[in-house]
Amino acid sequence: MAKGRNEPHGRRIRLGMVGGGIDAFIGGVHRIAARIDDKYELVAGALSSTPEKSQASGESLGLPRIYDDFKTMAAREARRKDGIEAVAIVTPNNVHYAAAREFLKRGIHVICDKPLTSTLADAKKMVKAAETSDALFILTHNYTGYPMVRQAREMVTNGDLGKVRVVQVEYPQDWLTVQQDFKQAEWRTDPERSGAGGSTGDIGTHAFNLACFVTCLEVESIAADIEAFVPGRQVDDNAHVMLRFAGGARGMLWCSQVAPGNENALRLRVYGEKGGLEWAQEDPNYLWHTAFGEPKRLLTRNGSGTGAAAARISRIPPGHPEGYLEGFANIYSEAAEAILAARYGRPVPKDVVYPTVHDGLRGVQFVAACIKSSARNAAWVKLDP
Amino acid sequence: MAKGRNEPHGRRIRLGMVGGGIDAFIGGVHRIAARIDDKYELVAGALSSTPEKSQASGESLGLPRIYDDFKTMAAREARRKDGIEAVAIVTPNNVHYAAAREFLKRGIHVICDKPLTSTLADAKKMVKAAETSDALFILTHNYTGYPMVRQAREMVTNGDLGKVRVVQVEYPQDWLTVQQDFKQAEWRTDPERSGAGGSTGDIGTHAFNLACFVTCLEVESIAADIEAFVPGRQVDDNAHVMLRFAGGARGMLWCSQVAPGNENALRLRVYGEKGGLEWAQEDPNYLWHTAFGEPKRLLTRNGSGTGAAAARISRIPPGHPEGYLEGFANIYSEAAEAILAARYGRPVPKDVVYPTVHDGLRGVQFVAACIKSSARNAAWVKLDP
Amino acid sequence: MAKGRNEPHGRRIRLGMVGGGIDAFIGGVHRIAARIDDKYELVAGALSSTPEKSQASGESLGLPRIYDDFKTMAAREARRKDGIEAVAIVTPNNVHYAAAREFLKRGIHVICDKPLTSTLADAKKMVKAAETSDALFILTHNYTGYPMVRQAREMVTNGDLGKVRVVQVEYPQDWLTVQQDFKQAEWRTDPERSGAGGSTGDIGTHAFNLACFVTCLEVESIAADIEAFVPGRQVDDNAHVMLRFAGGARGMLWCSQVAPGNENALRLRVYGEKGGLEWAQEDPNYLWHTAFGEPKRLLTRNGSGTGAAAARISRIPPGHPEGYLEGFANIYSEAAEAILAARYGRPVPKDVVYPTVHDGLRGVQFVAACIKSSARNAAWVKLDP
Amino acid sequence: MAKGRNEPHGRRIRLGMVGGGIDAFIGGVHRIAARIDDKYELVAGALSSTPEKSQASGESLGLPRIYDDFKTMAAREARRKDGIEAVAIVTPNNVHYAAAREFLKRGIHVICDKPLTSTLADAKKMVKAAETSDALFILTHNYTGYPMVRQAREMVTNGDLGKVRVVQVEYPQDWLTVQQDFKQAEWRTDPERSGAGGSTGDIGTHAFNLACFVTCLEVESIAADIEAFVPGRQVDDNAHVMLRFAGGARGMLWCSQVAPGNENALRLRVYGEKGGLEWAQEDPNYLWHTAFGEPKRLLTRNGSGTGAAAARISRIPPGHPEGYLEGFANIYSEAAEAILAARYGRPVPKDVVYPTVHDGLRGVQFVAACIKSSARNAAWVKLDP
Repeated sequence: MAKGRNEPHGRRIRLGMVGGGIDAFIGGVHRIAARIDDKYELVAGALSSTPEKSQASGESLGLPRIYDDFKTMAAREARRKDGIEAVAIVTPNNVHYAAAREFLKRGIHVICDKPLTSTLADAKKMVKAAETSDALFILTHNYTGYPMVRQAREMVTNGDLGKVRVVQVEYPQDWLTVQQDFKQAEWRTDPERSGAGGSTGDIGTHAFNLACFVTCLEVESIAADIEAFVPGRQVDDNAHVMLRFAGGARGMLWCSQVAPGNENALRLRVYGEKGGLEWAQEDPNYLWHTAFGEPKRLLTRNGSGTGAAAARISRIPPGHPEGYLEGFANIYSEAAEAILAARYGRPVPKDVVYPTVHDGLRGVQFVAACIKSSARNAAWVKLDP
Repeated sequence: MAKGRNEPHGRRIRLGMVGGGIDAFIGGVHRIAARIDDKYELVAGALSSTPEKSQASGESLGLPRIYDDFKTMAAREARRKDGIEAVAIVTPNNVHYAAAREFLKRGIHVICDKPLTSTLADAKKMVKAAETSDALFILTHNYTGYPMVRQAREMVTNGDLGKVRVVQVEYPQDWLTVQQDFKQAEWRTDPERSGAGGSTGDIGTHAFNLACFVTCLEVESIAADIEAFVPGRQVDDNAHVMLRFAGGARGMLWCSQVAPGNENALRLRVYGEKGGLEWAQEDPNYLWHTAFGEPKRLLTRNGSGTGAAAARISRIPPGHPEGYLEGFANIYSEAAEAILAARYGRPVPKDVVYPTVHDGLRGVQFVAACIKSSARNAAWVKLDP
Repeated sequence: MAKGRNEPHGRRIRLGMVGGGIDAFIGGVHRIAARIDDKYELVAGALSSTPEKSQASGESLGLPRIYDDFKTMAAREARRKDGIEAVAIVTPNNVHYAAAREFLKRGIHVICDKPLTSTLADAKKMVKAAETSDALFILTHNYTGYPMVRQAREMVTNGDLGKVRVVQVEYPQDWLTVQQDFKQAEWRTDPERSGAGGSTGDIGTHAFNLACFVTCLEVESIAADIEAFVPGRQVDDNAHVMLRFAGGARGMLWCSQVAPGNENALRLRVYGEKGGLEWAQEDPNYLWHTAFGEPKRLLTRNGSGTGAAAARISRIPPGHPEGYLEGFANIYSEAAEAILAARYGRPVPKDVVYPTVHDGLRGVQFVAACIKSSARNAAWVKLDP
Repeated sequence: MAKGRNEPHGRRIRLGMVGGGIDAFIGGVHRIAARIDDKYELVAGALSSTPEKSQASGESLGLPRIYDDFKTMAAREARRKDGIEAVAIVTPNNVHYAAAREFLKRGIHVICDKPLTSTLADAKKMVKAAETSDALFILTHNYTGYPMVRQAREMVTNGDLGKVRVVQVEYPQDWLTVQQDFKQAEWRTDPERSGAGGSTGDIGTHAFNLACFVTCLEVESIAADIEAFVPGRQVDDNAHVMLRFAGGARGMLWCSQVAPGNENALRLRVYGEKGGLEWAQEDPNYLWHTAFGEPKRLLTRNGSGTGAAAARISRIPPGHPEGYLEGFANIYSEAAEAILAARYGRPVPKDVVYPTVHDGLRGVQFVAACIKSSARNAAWVKLDP
């Protein structure tokens, strides 16, 4: 482990968790992500929506401190000498703001799942809460934690592509091709809990964020044609979106939950005056690069031709795949570097990168713009009116 | 060669050619395509825009009869007992109509390169000329000649996908990423010769045709955001298009000539209520099929699980790739079956399929609609007003 | 996280480590692997070959108890009430036996890196030490921890392939294409520390183990042509091996460290009377299955068509890749289930699978047989004489 | 069609055919291959083993001159002023020599399918017959006609790989996994007609030839473990072979007809001191190249980074796949250049390359050596004793 993520020095960060009880999916992912680089210690939680379930979930994890609800947890932890320094919020989207606020106002750092909130109003309040807090706010747009996504961003920034012209991004899935009744499907297709966007909120925001992260470009306006193909579904399950970026680049974004044969087929392609890049989440250790007029090259994580940004967050040699959990862990470890900097009053190292509350706002604006545009028959809508 | 394309019985079809002289690209492709299954004999040509070049080009090919221009050729060949029965028109787009008309009105079958014409007005005249002629009109949307494209169409028709919901089609290239001066680039970026559409006409029409061919669905309206990224270019070199099909399916179409790392990356994905299909032109002997809830399957040309429509136009066993030229030859051989049926007064066999003048009109309407929509800031435009 | 690896119940296993100090590669991997499923707590270590380095390495990891050497560590930990229950041995191969013996004889479970030992004599002593100990011995042939490898084994066992006829396994790398001087390269090409086998010991044993694990077949004899291509190299860097399995199956094994373009390209293909399987370590979430006469199917981790053995050790949904570290963690978590069963006097659950000291002996026999066969001009040599 | 194969000048070569009647597979392939570049005219044939079938097959193809048998054909054609200049021999292997001799001794060029003969004795007689004839002898090891195979050879020759160390070549199929009764299977598994080698003769010779062609190295000796897995089969259906090349390179060759999931999965990998190459027949327009220490590059037929040897035999731009038939046609067109040179007394151009009778002898020696080695329990056997 010569390069990349090194193991911790000093005391681990005391972490709490809101949501993520038994049967939840993303909570377990956050816990593994927090463990991989050994920079956190999970010591408290309010893991479910009822006290009983919270207790049972907390016990099953062997949590030292179990709370009935996040309000109590925030209040009590803030008072402890050994209270949590950071909290992971992994509830359904509609609870994100209310929970985050409690911790932010007490100076406890927040690591929040995406999308930021279920409504644009909440998103704006969240920005305000984050901005007026001393604590940090980290949004887990985890795909930005993949080393080869960092490599792509570095190459764009270095000018390897020249001026970006065309961006193609897509995130198709198939799990909602038919009506589904299990818990994950249920809340994600309920506009009350998930927000007005279905596929646009759940995965479209990831695609949108990834495109912006890699290109370092802002989307100015979008034109969207969204649809709920499954009868009775209250939120979109497929969206076709055209993008116009500041500076003249154009793009397309497709997200779908009704595309049989696609599991989590997030894919980004960026083309500029001098070259092109292609990356796919399901094969994340590779990045295709073409300098115009030369053969296509296959860059590999930690392999030849790969730069500092990717190497910095890699753990093992090329050819031994790192996956989704390591990418997610990179967000947690970036957050840890920022939190430790805050703890010790050091500046955050320049190369530490993580999604912020502003990225979260952009995502919620994206969903709102998709719904607005679609209601106007796919007319162009500004993202930030 | 137990199955598929068999070799000819009886006399080969006498073929002429307009365009396709020295330095032309597509003329040579048409000639190989006509030869592969041995159903044609090239006996006459007016291969270039000047008598001198026509003569030189014809001689280099050892053509029995060389003409200065297509008018003379049409008139004289029609008078011969052993005159051509069919003509291949492989000129720049703006000449298609004028040339085709001469042959159609004399009852000589026309095999015409795509797009149908450079203008919508010409396209409508071409339809009329074809409809009022006894001769056949075949448009070489050659990608519909790939066996696995036929397989995909057969599966859609058989209901393997259920009702189609989403269509994703794209045709990116990179050869016009920078200003190019050679002959192929020159006429294709000249609106006078190529038509008002650049990438939309040259490759967008292929993508559009392929999507309609496989799904058997009509596109009702489109919303397009087209762009000429290379400074000074007079026609689009990139187009983002949203599609609405009759019956409710939605789609996206991307064509580009400025996407470094893409050679001829035509790709089609179709998703329905029960399954999905994926096909890529650069790897044309394969078709991915997913029945929702089952593992993805890799269907191969002439292999297990592949049906009659593909087997009928295959020549060799699976694992020995057939390519672009064989797919192109399939259009010629389909045409030959129709022409021989006409020659002997037989009905055309039911399974013979080739692109018609109406498909050609749809393509030109698609280009016109893209330009119109883009001029209206990507508003939805009906294809056939 | 509905299925697969769940999180811990009860007290974590107290773990020690021998080897794995600063600059070591595999020690860090073991530590992450032990953390991912939260079943271990690293509390003691003798991480380097000198007391000074051991101290420094231990401090950098924040280890509670740091020892100068493994003997002291074994003795003292065995005497503590809260002493380690298991030890991970991640030294160079020639130290494995001496270290393991100290812990085994004190009833401390051993998790040992592969190959088992650097000599056949040591391997036999290790077997004896393990057999006469109450403690468990787990060998980290980590590739057997990939879910789709378990899937492959399950399918072979279920008879999906019929009787196995042909096995193709290979493990090419390229990092030793030229003389290398850094630490990892140095000890791995030193016969004193690594053993008489170079590529055969370091990666050939992995390939050998994988083939046997998936097919559940024993290799009876081998014929090997080994070579050291890089001038001055004292151990093989490329080996061509033919395999004969009990029951009549035949195989080929290729391992190389001088194959430019290969990172860790371990690949296994198994063919039987009724079907075939293909798996590649660099894309480990997929398994190709062909039932003879049907199209090839792509099975995905936790996806449709994948069985219980793979699902049991998966953490996240299909399409979100798990990687090398999760596969390695699965060995640790299998070991944990066995260790906890031992702790509480329960039988080890039937579906818990991990590589044993006997698998380790087979690997060392494989290396010895390769060297012996090669010395006899690739004559067939029995594995277990 | 600016580059590559151009169309013919002057009179086409008059071609005859022996074998290749109705129901034959490879005859049809030869006919298409001869047509694609328009350099041949098929004017005579003795297509089947009986006069009746020969007549029927010849008529179905519309052949001008149909003969009962090859002896009559050779004699009569040799006497005609407009007799055939070359003959394609596409019979079962055991007839190759008898047929070729008749034409060679009359100065008619022979284009012969592989393997050269069914016995080593015949192969030696064939060499003599070819050497003592004024006519040319071309063996259709068609895979050497793929442009990217030429590219690979050119790169090896140019020293891009440095000295070659390791060669991995394989040709697995699955069509004989079970007993098959149709014509193609029948003669290929009959030692009388096919020769003593089954998979070794039918496809092993292709793999062997390809490895030698690309590396420009001779195989000195082999050690083979061959097997007939299907009960009752009289010839091998799977072979594992270790190779030793002159100059020190080592290799492995695997051929199989019982590997479910493989169609015609011929694949070659070559590794040298400075780099590696990988090519697969089922995706033949691509060649992977790695210069050690740099990222892998994907070279494409006629694309950037591809040299003169490949461009010379390409017809269409990159991204439009050429396939098996075009590769086969390249052998025919190379032969045509040599035949025309002979016709006009010109030297054969230096860049014209085709497999010769000596390559054919090497292939038959390879089969004989495999059988001999296997009989001696896989002892090393010299290829040319």
